[in-house]
Amino acid sequence: MKTKIAVAKGDGIGPEIMAAVLRIFEAADVQLDYEYVEMGKSYFDAGHSTGMTAQAKETIERLGLLFKGPMETPKGKGVKSINVTARKVWNTYANQRDFRSLNGVNTVFSKAGIPINLTIVRENIEDTYGGIEHLLTNDVAVGRRIITRPGSAQVIRYAFEMARRKGYTKLACGHKANIMKLTDGLFLETFQEIAKEYPDIESSDIIVDDLCMKLVSRPEQFQAIVLTNLQGDIVSDLCAGLVGGLGFAPSANIGDNISIFEAVHGTAPDIAGRGIANPTALLLSGILMLRYLGFTTAAANIENSLLYTLEQGIHTGDFGDKEIPSVNTDTFADAVIANL
Amino acid sequence: MKTKIAVAKGDGIGPEIMAAVLRIFEAADVQLDYEYVEMGKSYFDAGHSTGMTAQAKETIERLGLLFKGPMETPKGKGVKSINVTARKVWNTYANQRDFRSLNGVNTVFSKAGIPINLTIVRENIEDTYGGIEHLLTNDVAVGRRIITRPGSAQVIRYAFEMARRKGYTKLACGHKANIMKLTDGLFLETFQEIAKEYPDIESSDIIVDDLCMKLVSRPEQFQAIVLTNLQGDIVSDLCAGLVGGLGFAPSANIGDNISIFEAVHGTAPDIAGRGIANPTALLLSGILMLRYLGFTTAAANIENSLLYTLEQGIHTGDFGDKEIPSVNTDTFADAVIANL
Ligand SMILES: CC(C)[C@H](C(=O)O)[C@@H](O)C(=O)O
Ligand SMILES: CC(C)[C@H](C(=O)O)[C@@H](O)C(=O)O
Repeated sequence: MKTKIAVAKGDGIGPEIMAAVLRIFEAADVQLDYEYVEMGKSYFDAGHSTGMTAQAKETIERLGLLFKGPMETPKGKGVKSINVTARKVWNTYANQRDFRSLNGVNTVFSKAGIPINLTIVRENIEDTYGGIEHLLTNDVAVGRRIITRPGSAQVIRYAFEMARRKGYTKLACGHKANIMKLTDGLFLETFQEIAKEYPDIESSDIIVDDLCMKLVSRPEQFQAIVLTNLQGDIVSDLCAGLVGGLGFAPSANIGDNISIFEAVHGTAPDIAGRGIANPTALLLSGILMLRYLGFTTAAANIENSLLYTLEQGIHTGDFGDKEIPSVNTDTFADAVIANL
Repeated sequence: MKTKIAVAKGDGIGPEIMAAVLRIFEAADVQLDYEYVEMGKSYFDAGHSTGMTAQAKETIERLGLLFKGPMETPKGKGVKSINVTARKVWNTYANQRDFRSLNGVNTVFSKAGIPINLTIVRENIEDTYGGIEHLLTNDVAVGRRIITRPGSAQVIRYAFEMARRKGYTKLACGHKANIMKLTDGLFLETFQEIAKEYPDIESSDIIVDDLCMKLVSRPEQFQAIVLTNLQGDIVSDLCAGLVGGLGFAPSANIGDNISIFEAVHGTAPDIAGRGIANPTALLLSGILMLRYLGFTTAAANIENSLLYTLEQGIHTGDFGDKEIPSVNTDTFADAVIANL
C-alpha cells in the first residue's frame, strides 16, 4: 500500500514546479499517493481567513504530512502569513534547512573553492513570531518576544537527534544572550542542559553576530546550528546565499504530529505560467521528505540524479553557466529523470 | 589651539593599539590634544557600577568626543555591557560602520574578485537593547522590543545625511516588517516619510533575511543600509566578515552632543601585552573620527598610507599572506608612518 500525503501546489510558479517534482517522483517509482488540498492566495480571496479550506485542514491533520509549493499571502494589516500560520497551528516547532554546495551552481564560495555543507535548525513558532505587538502611542510601538523552556527544549532536542542521525560530530547554539539575557539566556541554558544528554555530540555556543561573521568567512567550521526563530530566519537566508540563493534551499517544518516540507522561495509572479521556473529547491525539499518517510533508496537515487544533472551544467534561466543555454522546467525535469 | 578629545585606552590589547594609533596621529601632525579617562574592566572591579569614574563621565560630557579602545565587561547577571551603556547614557543614536575591501587583506570575496564598499547605519539605543525582560515563570521569559518614531527618525535622518555627504546615490532600509508589523512597521514608515525629503537619494526597503542573502552573494549592489539595533548588529558583523573580520571594521557612535569612535573587536586577552595586536580597526575608526572633526587632509593622508602599507603585504599575525612574515604592532605603525 502506498503512503498518502497532502499536497498543496501553491501560487505563482508553485503548480509548475510541483508538477515537475511529482513527475520525477513518479519516474523514480516513489510509492506515494497524493491528496491535493486547497491552500493559498485564492482561498484568502475567497474569504478563508487562514488561506485554506476546512477540508484542507482536515486532510492535512489526517495525513500528518504536507508537501507544499510556495504561497502568497495577500498584503494588509491583520492578515498573517500563511506559511507562519501553518507552522503555528500544527506546532511544527523545528525548521530544518540543509545547505550544501552544488557543482554547477556558481557562488562566491564555490569560486573561492570553499565547500558548504551545513544545517540550520530554527525554532519555528515562538519569539517575535507570536505577533504580540501594540502601539502605546502613535509614536511608540511595543513588541513582545517570548521564549519558553519547553518550546526551546523540543527544537534543541530535535537538533541533537538530527545531528546524531546525520553522523555530525558537533552542534552549535547561536544566540544573543549577552543582550537578551533572560529570553536568549533561557534558550542557551536549555541548550546546555540538553547537551549533557548527548555526550557524543560536541556542543558549543556562539553569539549570533559573531556567527554571521564566521559564516561568511569560514563556514566550513560549522556542521549544524540551532537558533531561536528570527535569528534562525536571518541566518538561514544568509546560508542560502552561500549556496546560490533560495532556489537551492530545501526546508522541513517538523512537528510531533504534522510535518510540512516546502521550498522557502517566493511565488515569482513575474515568471509564473511560463514554464521556466527552477524546481530545484522544491525537489530538494521533496528529497528531505522522502528520507523523513523512510524512502531512503528513492531519495538517494533522485538526489544523485539531481546532483549529476546540475554538474552537467543543465540549468534553468536563474542560475548556472551563462555560456550554456538554459532549459525550461520540463526539460530540466526530463534530464533529472534521464539520469535516474 | 588644538582640539581636545577624551581617550580611553581600553582593556587587553587596547593600550597597545591605542598607543600605535596615537603615534601615527602624531607623525601625521594631527592637531589633537588628549585627556585620558578611566573606563573599563578595572573600574568595574573597583566598584564603579557603569565601569567608569565620575571624572571620566564629566570629561567625556565636557569634551563631547571619546576615542575608545576595546573594553571588557565583567560577566554576571545584572552587569550591563559598558559599550552598550555608553551608547545609551550619551544618546549616541547612530552607529555607522564602513566596510570596504582592503588590498592585502584576503577574504573569500577578494578571491572571487568582488569589491566591497558599503556602510551600515544601525540604530544604537532602542529595540531589545533596552534590556526590558522578565521571567513570567521559571519556564517563560518575556522580553520587550520598543521602537519609537523619534528614535527611528534621528538615525534615519543621520543615514540620509551621511549618504549625501559621501556622495552615495542610494540608501536601503533593512527590516522585518512582514512579521513585526507594528515595531518594524513604524521604523519602515518613518524611513519612507523621511525619504521624501531626500529626492536625490534613491530609497528602497528590503526584508532583513533577504538582505543577508544578497549581501553574501551580490554585496556590490548596496551602498548604505539603515536598520534597527539588533538586526543592524547582526548585519554589520556579517559585513565585517566580508572584508576580513572585526580587525578591519571601524565604528562611530554618533549623538547630537557626544560621539564615540571605537574599534568593535574585543580585548583579545590571549595576546594582550605581547605587542602583536592589529591596530587597523582602531586606526580606521580614528580616520573616521578625523573626518568627523573636519581634519580631512590628515584623515586622507593617514588613510592612503594605511592602504599602501596593507597593499605592501605588511601585516600583523592575524591576517595577510602567510608567505610574508608578520610584524608586530609597533613595526606595523612604523610602516604606516614611513608611508605618510
Ligand atoms: C515569509 C516569511 C514570513 C518567512 C519567515 O520569516 O519565516 C520566510 O522568511 C521564511 O524563512 O520562511
Ligand atoms: C558587545 C555587544 C554588546 C555589542 C552589541 O551587541 O552591540 C557588539 O556586538 C557590537 O556590535 O558593538
